[in-house]
Amino acid sequence: MSVTPDNAVRTYLEQHRESFLDDLAEWLRIPSVSAQPEHDADVRRSAEWLAAKLKETGFPTAEIWPTDGAPAVFAEWPSADPDAPTVLVYGHHDVQPAALADGWHTDPFEPVVKDGRMYGRGAADDKGQVLFHTLGVRAHLAATGRTTPAVHLKLLVEGEEESGSPHFRDLVERHRDRLTADAVIVSDTGMWSETTPTVCTGMRGLADCEIELYGPDQDIHSGSFGGAVPNPATVAARIVAALHDEHERVTVPGFYDGVTELTAAERELLAELPFDEAEWLRTAKSYGTSGEAGHSTLERIWARPTAEVNGIGGGYQGPGGKTIIPSSAMLKLSFRLVAGQDPDRIEEAFRGWVASLIPAGIRHEITFGAATRPCLTPLDHPALQAVTRSMSRAFDGQKIRFTREGGSGPAADLQDVLDAPVLFLGISVPSDGWHAPNEKIELTLLLKGVETAAYLWGDLAGALH
Amino acid sequence: MSVTPDNAVRTYLEQHRESFLDDLAEWLRIPSVSAQPEHDADVRRSAEWLAAKLKETGFPTAEIWPTDGAPAVFAEWPSADPDAPTVLVYGHHDVQPAALADGWHTDPFEPVVKDGRMYGRGAADDKGQVLFHTLGVRAHLAATGRTTPAVHLKLLVEGEEESGSPHFRDLVERHRDRLTADAVIVSDTGMWSETTPTVCTGMRGLADCEIELYGPDQDIHSGSFGGAVPNPATVAARIVAALHDEHERVTVPGFYDGVTELTAAERELLAELPFDEAEWLRTAKSYGTSGEAGHSTLERIWARPTAEVNGIGGGYQGPGGKTIIPSSAMLKLSFRLVAGQDPDRIEEAFRGWVASLIPAGIRHEITFGAATRPCLTPLDHPALQAVTRSMSRAFDGQKIRFTREGGSGPAADLQDVLDAPVLFLGISVPSDGWHAPNEKIELTLLLKGVETAAYLWGDLAGALH
Repeated sequence: MSVTPDNAVRTYLEQHRESFLDDLAEWLRIPSVSAQPEHDADVRRSAEWLAAKLKETGFPTAEIWPTDGAPAVFAEWPSADPDAPTVLVYGHHDVQPAALADGWHTDPFEPVVKDGRMYGRGAADDKGQVLFHTLGVRAHLAATGRTTPAVHLKLLVEGEEESGSPHFRDLVERHRDRLTADAVIVSDTGMWSETTPTVCTGMRGLADCEIELYGPDQDIHSGSFGGAVPNPATVAARIVAALHDEHERVTVPGFYDGVTELTAAERELLAELPFDEAEWLRTAKSYGTSGEAGHSTLERIWARPTAEVNGIGGGYQGPGGKTIIPSSAMLKLSFRLVAGQDPDRIEEAFRGWVASLIPAGIRHEITFGAATRPCLTPLDHPALQAVTRSMSRAFDGQKIRFTREGGSGPAADLQDVLDAPVLFLGISVPSDGWHAPNEKIELTLLLKGVETAAYLWGDLAGALH
Repeated sequence: MSVTPDNAVRTYLEQHRESFLDDLAEWLRIPSVSAQPEHDADVRRSAEWLAAKLKETGFPTAEIWPTDGAPAVFAEWPSADPDAPTVLVYGHHDVQPAALADGWHTDPFEPVVKDGRMYGRGAADDKGQVLFHTLGVRAHLAATGRTTPAVHLKLLVEGEEESGSPHFRDLVERHRDRLTADAVIVSDTGMWSETTPTVCTGMRGLADCEIELYGPDQDIHSGSFGGAVPNPATVAARIVAALHDEHERVTVPGFYDGVTELTAAERELLAELPFDEAEWLRTAKSYGTSGEAGHSTLERIWARPTAEVNGIGGGYQGPGGKTIIPSSAMLKLSFRLVAGQDPDRIEEAFRGWVASLIPAGIRHEITFGAATRPCLTPLDHPALQAVTRSMSRAFDGQKIRFTREGGSGPAADLQDVLDAPVLFLGISVPSDGWHAPNEKIELTLLLKGVETAAYLWGDLAGALH
């Protein structure tokens, strides 16, 4: 298959570029902040705006799907070819809070185009990356002379991603029949940089828990009793300290069972990325690296499972001293999981391991939250190769490299409920300022996203057959 | 020296018992709660009451000594014998807060005598044990026909002990010249039980510190960065976990240097005490014992140095989860010290030891509070033997056993500033309910305290010569 750009696509994009950017600006003016109840009506208005725009684009079906929180938008454009594979695009239409006082140079909800960038809350996360699919599918049709896409195309655009997607799993399960797909395309991530286009191939999963440790019935005097009864804060600390060995590997028995190890080829590909550790540390606002021995920083955050303390507390934390043995202590821990790990088995192993560390006289309780599974698409997966080829065409034949995402997200729910591979298509770059003041999107890259989408449906139709 | 009781002393006590108890009841009616500002005037009134009572007892000097907080009372009764040794008695006239609503059966500041006990806040801690010295010194004079005590007798009764004695060290240093003594008698402790009279021979010292640990400049995302930068909460936990070895011995280098070990004889004496571990655990409101290997519970709390976590905190401690690497974490640690340990050397060793545990990328600060030194009087010290003999006489020749105090107190300031041995004389028992509702003192034991004081000055005069 060719990786040369398509003149018909590029011509179409040039012709429709301005009205597309006007559309985006109009959508960005709706402050769809899902975390702020005063914007509930705006979030609904945002969903309605998108549904109308998708109808106008040509989607025969575009519906508002209510949830127990903010509404999602679902749209569907069947292919005339009944044997065409089905692709579901995921994105979100809600945005992070934003206010001029946070350091914005212009009103976050009055988009401004300057120096080839559009500034505004949601420009990159995620309205810009959702909307490129409208012009993308139109360009696909225009360039190929088709009247329907080469794939059965579905879109699911939720309204609560910035609030932790509390109703997303439920939504997907309720509508499982209408959401069936052969592949999921997540348009809510980014690339390495302007000059290094990349495709994300997976996200880590997440399991988290809280441990309560109970010692004496009340705080007791450390002079009268110190050194003779177990201290729950000490036990909490010993659990944390025992969680890693001297190579910073997690010691919970079986934790690494089933882990999909990086192949030598994958490690080489990661090592090729122009990683600047000093720059990365600035992003992490940190002053040193550490982690599992034998792995680079990128491997540690993308491809290795981890255990972190998110919170620890016990005893007196106010000013000055208080000579007590605390009555209780608390730990919040989370595990990032990678492909091949089973959250249920890890929870079970962890519970047994913690119990083995609890001395007589201390009682403990462990509560796990709902786990998010990891997702990972192998580099040789045909759909991933189609995404890479389409992106390379849009990027003038540049080599597309691979990244992963260290965090965890609702994409995994789609993978699990729909039993479909998840692919990531995003053209945002780290400087776009997600969740920060002066969020922007590079218009050149935004159009590369449109162009990638324009090539993708034809390529995927072949790849998934 | 005889340990038979003195009929003259006992006769004198019988004659003056009622007026003595009336005096105590009058004093207990003054709610001298140093922790509650609304009782400031009562604390002053309590000091004035005591000074007047000491004058009435015969002390030529009885003064109110102001501090930056509540006032202390100082009294002095020189011996006619210019070569007599000087003894300083320590106690306090302030009391713990108390309210009917806390579970008192009667008004805590309206003392009631019932079943041979006087109930009221301060009955045992510490007004009763201060006041027995008034009748004690009168009985000493009456029984020996003296007009002045056999020792130069001084009393220092502070007004802030229940508030942590914040100005006591300063007070003692300012009045060092007037407080000089050959021995200090602390009347603010108790005995093992009604049937096992004991003398306390020492208190543990205290050094405490706070450690602040700083990692990223702000909380960072545990998905994006987890497993690749050091987590200050993990470092805090590792410090705590490293503080003890598998035998629960403190691992700070040199921590045990100079520790005055229990002799085989002392261990045997401790083992003779009728210790009921189940009962002790109920007092500790705890469900298991633990501690330094090779030592009994009593040895651990009385005679062994310890390290305890009093507080630990870092990251998210609210409800639910939050997937962060915390920006900072905090530890509050305290060390109980025993005779022979040097708080300054321990602080220095600890600072070096902590520094060795801090990984690159984590910054730390350690702040130590003012240390309280341990005090310990050897069993063969002549003054301790005098206390024991006097007590045995009062207790009809019963064997007096030895205890220690696991906590730390202002007695150590007297020892350090005055360079004098500290002896403890107390007749309160664990059931007296210090700091609890329905505090009481057993009148039989209170009179044994008076009687011991009546014998003590003559015996000490000989022992300290």
